Amino acid sequence: QGSNITFYGKLDVAIENVRFSAASGKAASTASYLSNDISYWGLRGNEDLGDGTRAYFKLESGFSADTGTSSGGNQLFDREALVGYGATWGALQLGSQYAPSLFVQARSDPFGRNNNGNGITLTQQIPGNLRGFVGQLPLNNAVQYISPSLDGVVVRVLHSFSERAAAPKDLGEFSGGSIDYFKGGPLYVGLSYEVQKLAGATPTTVLSNKTAALGASYVFSQAKLFGYLMHNTLTNAAAVNAQLVGVSVPLGLSDVKASYSQRKLNGDDAGKANIIAIGYFYHLSKRTEVYTSWAHLHNGAGTNFGIWPSDKTYAPPVVAGGAGLPVLGQSINSLELGLRHFF
Amino acid sequence: QGSNITFYGKLDVAIENVRFSAASGKAASTASYLSNDISYWGLRGNEDLGDGTRAYFKLESGFSADTGTSSGGNQLFDREALVGYGATWGALQLGSQYAPSLFVQARSDPFGRNNNGNGITLTQQIPGNLRGFVGQLPLNNAVQYISPSLDGVVVRVLHSFSERAAAPKDLGEFSGGSIDYFKGGPLYVGLSYEVQKLAGATPTTVLSNKTAALGASYVFSQAKLFGYLMHNTLTNAAAVNAQLVGVSVPLGLSDVKASYSQRKLNGDDAGKANIIAIGYFYHLSKRTEVYTSWAHLHNGAGTNFGIWPSDKTYAPPVVAGGAGLPVLGQSINSLELGLRHFF
Amino acid sequence: QGSNITFYGKLDVAIENVRFSAASGKAASTASYLSNDISYWGLRGNEDLGDGTRAYFKLESGFSADTGTSSGGNQLFDREALVGYGATWGALQLGSQYAPSLFVQARSDPFGRNNNGNGITLTQQIPGNLRGFVGQLPLNNAVQYISPSLDGVVVRVLHSFSERAAAPKDLGEFSGGSIDYFKGGPLYVGLSYEVQKLAGATPTTVLSNKTAALGASYVFSQAKLFGYLMHNTLTNAAAVNAQLVGVSVPLGLSDVKASYSQRKLNGDDAGKANIIAIGYFYHLSKRTEVYTSWAHLHNGAGTNFGIWPSDKTYAPPVVAGGAGLPVLGQSINSLELGLRHFF
Repeated sequence: QGSNITFYGKLDVAIENVRFSAASGKAASTASYLSNDISYWGLRGNEDLGDGTRAYFKLESGFSADTGTSSGGNQLFDREALVGYGATWGALQLGSQYAPSLFVQARSDPFGRNNNGNGITLTQQIPGNLRGFVGQLPLNNAVQYISPSLDGVVVRVLHSFSERAAAPKDLGEFSGGSIDYFKGGPLYVGLSYEVQKLAGATPTTVLSNKTAALGASYVFSQAKLFGYLMHNTLTNAAAVNAQLVGVSVPLGLSDVKASYSQRKLNGDDAGKANIIAIGYFYHLSKRTEVYTSWAHLHNGAGTNFGIWPSDKTYAPPVVAGGAGLPVLGQSINSLELGLRHFF
Repeated sequence: QGSNITFYGKLDVAIENVRFSAASGKAASTASYLSNDISYWGLRGNEDLGDGTRAYFKLESGFSADTGTSSGGNQLFDREALVGYGATWGALQLGSQYAPSLFVQARSDPFGRNNNGNGITLTQQIPGNLRGFVGQLPLNNAVQYISPSLDGVVVRVLHSFSERAAAPKDLGEFSGGSIDYFKGGPLYVGLSYEVQKLAGATPTTVLSNKTAALGASYVFSQAKLFGYLMHNTLTNAAAVNAQLVGVSVPLGLSDVKASYSQRKLNGDDAGKANIIAIGYFYHLSKRTEVYTSWAHLHNGAGTNFGIWPSDKTYAPPVVAGGAGLPVLGQSINSLELGLRHFF
Repeated sequence: QGSNITFYGKLDVAIENVRFSAASGKAASTASYLSNDISYWGLRGNEDLGDGTRAYFKLESGFSADTGTSSGGNQLFDREALVGYGATWGALQLGSQYAPSLFVQARSDPFGRNNNGNGITLTQQIPGNLRGFVGQLPLNNAVQYISPSLDGVVVRVLHSFSERAAAPKDLGEFSGGSIDYFKGGPLYVGLSYEVQKLAGATPTTVLSNKTAALGASYVFSQAKLFGYLMHNTLTNAAAVNAQLVGVSVPLGLSDVKASYSQRKLNGDDAGKANIIAIGYFYHLSKRTEVYTSWAHLHNGAGTNFGIWPSDKTYAPPVVAGGAGLPVLGQSINSLELGLRHFF
């Protein structure tokens, strides 16, 4: 006991300047933030059980490095809490786990899941926006199978129990899977699909929230290209489609990254939003980098997406200090200057 | 500083199938859970101060491995937080500590404090049931003396302050003790007694909740037998009595365990409940095991005990997802298939 | 990754006997507590980036060792969460950080920030008392510059963003700095100044809460002397002044400490409070000590300061168990017997 535990984590903090455009009934305004990008600490362990089998666990806890606040509140390990058993036939994991779709998205975006330019703002479910893949929080009460790599192909299947004894028994259930291809060469391709059962207007109504996604990246000699397509449907609602294209260019100890992502509610011209972003990352070491990143988020007349990582704007309705911004149709410019440190 | 710290923990998760019997006004129903058995992480340390004296500490935090939620909420170290000083005369501990009675019960039950068959469901205080020994949570603001082993006998005495300046000054106070006998041979015997001062109907009324328990185990050549008796009295209320018998049989890398426990509110035929259970545990290593365990909990017409570790049923009234089960007189079958990993 | 992390912490628990004097409408009363002095656990790391530069972080979490409760609730790392970059020109820190004034006070008090005799009861902002330096909690969303030591002089400047896009934009802002002199000799001198923008009576009113402090200590052959002066002003309110004098005398493995501190609201004879204290500390090792400490807090007719570390009295209005004590004009005697352990 007590052996083979690894502690790890990340602190990522940026001074961020945000400008909100003028919108109907709102003058333009600006604010400065100390913004927390994704920060976490965790512990994980692995036990060799012989004959290619192993037991392992992961407990990861997100926090806001600008305030020290645990991002999951009482859900201390809000970035996966799982125990797993692995063998030659693959691995079985029990606990609170990310949807397979998360990994497809993260590998298909030059910004990963960080910085104001990342695509998850428009493609991931966030509070007030239930149209996207389930990535903000892990799925609780979940069982996941992960295959071994067969000629570069890895399959993930995850099911999260509703834990309901009364009808509708499927309310709250989640099922999802992904197929990844990566053989060590320049090409990565990933496909994900998931179905989530949400509460409808009446106690017995259950809505199906379905998201399919296709992501890819390719390493050319001078640059790495990224692309991502998402299609989301919801019972009795118009479909949502989103796309991302991006590029990452290594320059010595630096990386320059750029991306364009957009999202559209079918049949609603007001339901469009897009983000254009460019970032510069300088690696002080393998574990530490400084960066600057600029992004412009355009909200359509019917959307009020906030921009990550400004915690005061990302999840509207926002707290008093954020003055209720953004409102519908209000666009945002964000400029970050940050320090990222892995441990 | 920073030396001699040990991190340790346990993840214990099971896929659990639960069947609720038909009861007055309720049809039979079933539910599937990913259930968290007792999971925790902790850190502890020890400093040798010379001449047989030492300082030590323990900080242990429970969590639900199926969701990553901290089981104590803001009480992060809800499984003891204490600092101690030890010498040849014994040890003195200050902090939040388990009642001495907990250790007597844990050693007198083949399932320890785990799995659907364990006896604590009927003998330990749980929410909505204040008749049993205090084991679910440690006692806050507590001072404990633990004797050295004198010819196999260890005495524990714990007192938890009410911290009240106004009358009734003893409201919330707890005092308890235990005598354990274990000399390394086949026999273990333990005796515990505790008095807890609870709030009565009026602001100045204080009720005395008293629990006496006797537990034992004995290792025979083929099996280990367990027994436990609990007697609880409460001011102006009928007494509660509970009993457990159990057996554990080692079979190579496996253990087979079985137990029968029952509980009765004196003079109330409706106030009876019992659990019968059998479990099979296969040890993949010293730190990791897989298991399956079946239990049947019978609720009398006047009881609605839930079954551990189904978090949706263990502490009624339950959340919406559990649909308010069990109701009075509703019995429960539980089948678990689980993975337990110590680190 | 995973390298160079240090875990550290402290548990400090005391059995405390408190006597409240008789006051208008209240009889004298007593209570016994298991009191938590400052206890915490944390992790920190440092990465050498070459050429005298480095990246580092600190995550520190306070808790009550008498109950296991996290002192910051969801703000898990409530005792600083920061990432820093250091070079020959000094260090820049981003995150949740203590005000520079805290370190001046801590170095100018023989009790540091511990025990019933410490000066922070009268000089630091505590709940219900916003007149003192900001030391109870770190400043969120803060950027701090710390200079290198230039001939013994270290300068700190900290700014905490309001993060407001709407007027009044400075509401919640904090700016502060300190100058410390310590060259390894007997003399320490520190000066701090800070301005905090608090909410006034109307939504657009912002009050300025300004605190200046001067602290010093000097090591004589037989004793170390301490002194501290604080001056606080608040928009449209009378000034608050506080003073402390103290002494620490080493006696073999022991230390004897004493202090007198007082506080006064200008022009209000009822607004006076003072503390006189004496303590004895015996070092069992470098990491562990036992101590006893006695203090008398005198409340004026218009003050009801509680005494640290009695959590039931320190932050009035107090919880039920503390019976609402102290009331205005009620003085307090506190006697502690404690165990302090660093890890």
